[in-house]
Amino acid sequence: MPRDDPDYIESVSKAFQVIEAFSAEHPALTISEASALTGLTRPTVRRILLTLVRLGFASPAENKTFVLTPQMMRLGYAYLSSTPVWDHAMPYMRDLADSVRESVSLAVLDAPDIVYVARVPAARSMTITLTVGARLPAYPTSLGRVLLASLSPQALDEYLASTELRRLTPTTICDPDELREELARVRKQGFAIIDGEREEGVRSAAVPVHDHQGRPIMALNVSANAARVTVQSLEEEVVPQLLRTAETISSHSRFSRHHTASG
Amino acid sequence: MPRDDPDYIESVSKAFQVIEAFSAEHPALTISEASALTGLTRPTVRRILLTLVRLGFASPAENKTFVLTPQMMRLGYAYLSSTPVWDHAMPYMRDLADSVRESVSLAVLDAPDIVYVARVPAARSMTITLTVGARLPAYPTSLGRVLLASLSPQALDEYLASTELRRLTPTTICDPDELREELARVRKQGFAIIDGEREEGVRSAAVPVHDHQGRPIMALNVSANAARVTVQSLEEEVVPQLLRTAETISSHSRFSRHHTASG
Repeated sequence: MPRDDPDYIESVSKAFQVIEAFSAEHPALTISEASALTGLTRPTVRRILLTLVRLGFASPAENKTFVLTPQMMRLGYAYLSSTPVWDHAMPYMRDLADSVRESVSLAVLDAPDIVYVARVPAARSMTITLTVGARLPAYPTSLGRVLLASLSPQALDEYLASTELRRLTPTTICDPDELREELARVRKQGFAIIDGEREEGVRSAAVPVHDHQGRPIMALNVSANAARVTVQSLEEEVVPQLLRTAETISSHSRFSRHHTASG
Repeated sequence: MPRDDPDYIESVSKAFQVIEAFSAEHPALTISEASALTGLTRPTVRRILLTLVRLGFASPAENKTFVLTPQMMRLGYAYLSSTPVWDHAMPYMRDLADSVRESVSLAVLDAPDIVYVARVPAARSMTITLTVGARLPAYPTSLGRVLLASLSPQALDEYLASTELRRLTPTTICDPDELREELARVRKQGFAIIDGEREEGVRSAAVPVHDHQGRPIMALNVSANAARVTVQSLEEEVVPQLLRTAETISSHSRFSRHHTASG
């Protein structure tokens, strides 16, 4: 932590550490528990939690614990609503999910991870519960391959220098040079296909989604059980539909930002 | 702002103000622009933005602007993943959306608003682009009615004392006593139906979703164009399916929190 930087506000950093201590495993935390999880002192954690309560981002709960409040989603929403493309994507993703009868996801790169920003599960899907905000490593996923392929040479060098390519299945590409070659192929052909590199039995295809200036800022994929879909059908049947949907999302995002809603 | 409270950390509050200055209208902000939007001084805004950049939550962009990064979603995700029920809901919501051929949403109360935490659009839906993290006022929406109906008498008094019930359409309930009566009816019958009170031409039905301790923590709804769905069919056909889906989501959330994902 850059303690010597006069522009660095330590209390802001600590507040984010406390927020991120909450999770599925730790939905409610006492001051002591948050202190243990973050390594911050109890008085510091106490002040941060009381500040978050005042601001409405946390609230006191049973047995001297604190919980986060829905207001916390405002912060993620501040990012999402400031991101082009995303706000018009869902209906088109839904159409694609119905057409290919598999789940469809939209993700951004937050190296070394991808982060899901929208997802439409397949109608029959019961096992795949990955949702908005969830993260996966970029290198063994089709979404990640498409986004890594769009990095500048310097950014890709940085990614490869700082990321451990772990063998998650027998087919995971773990050699940086081999990954570079694969990313060059992805860049050239305009899509990525993964066959069980992150999880055996899962195949997926992804394409880039461009903003109004033509920059690849998100990736769209179809993910399926390998028992249902061959690599050939992904490439010949799914990829053309992915490309059409990505183009529709991109072109649509160039027009109105008008929102119609229903409650 | 409670400046005199020794436990209140002003820089944390200011950091959240700067984050929330970013939006669809303002996806990229210069220091001056963020200063104008928040009312904070330029040196303060500058230090906060540089701190957010150091932490990875913001990054410098074109023309001396800053943008938020996908990492910002971690904070909303810290809330969502610490919330029971939500993580298992999507596949069941998808099934319901297919069955009723209308959009299905899951929301929590963050008074005076509801906040969407999951959404499955109807297959043909093109106009309804409301998404996760979006907020609507609680009182004229079916999701809000169900959640307001579950408040304690004191919490409901506070809500009514602090919320202006605005006439959004000719049918909006704007009288606090009338709203109390309607909420009592919702509580008794176990569901809420709205016919164009927030937006003319939109009808919706909602039911509560309970956590493993039986507390109503979220609401599930079906929202449809009034041209397609009568109030009678909402009540007789949609509500029973909503109740079954809510029960399935609740009971499922009592078991494993195991996540299977695919990239």
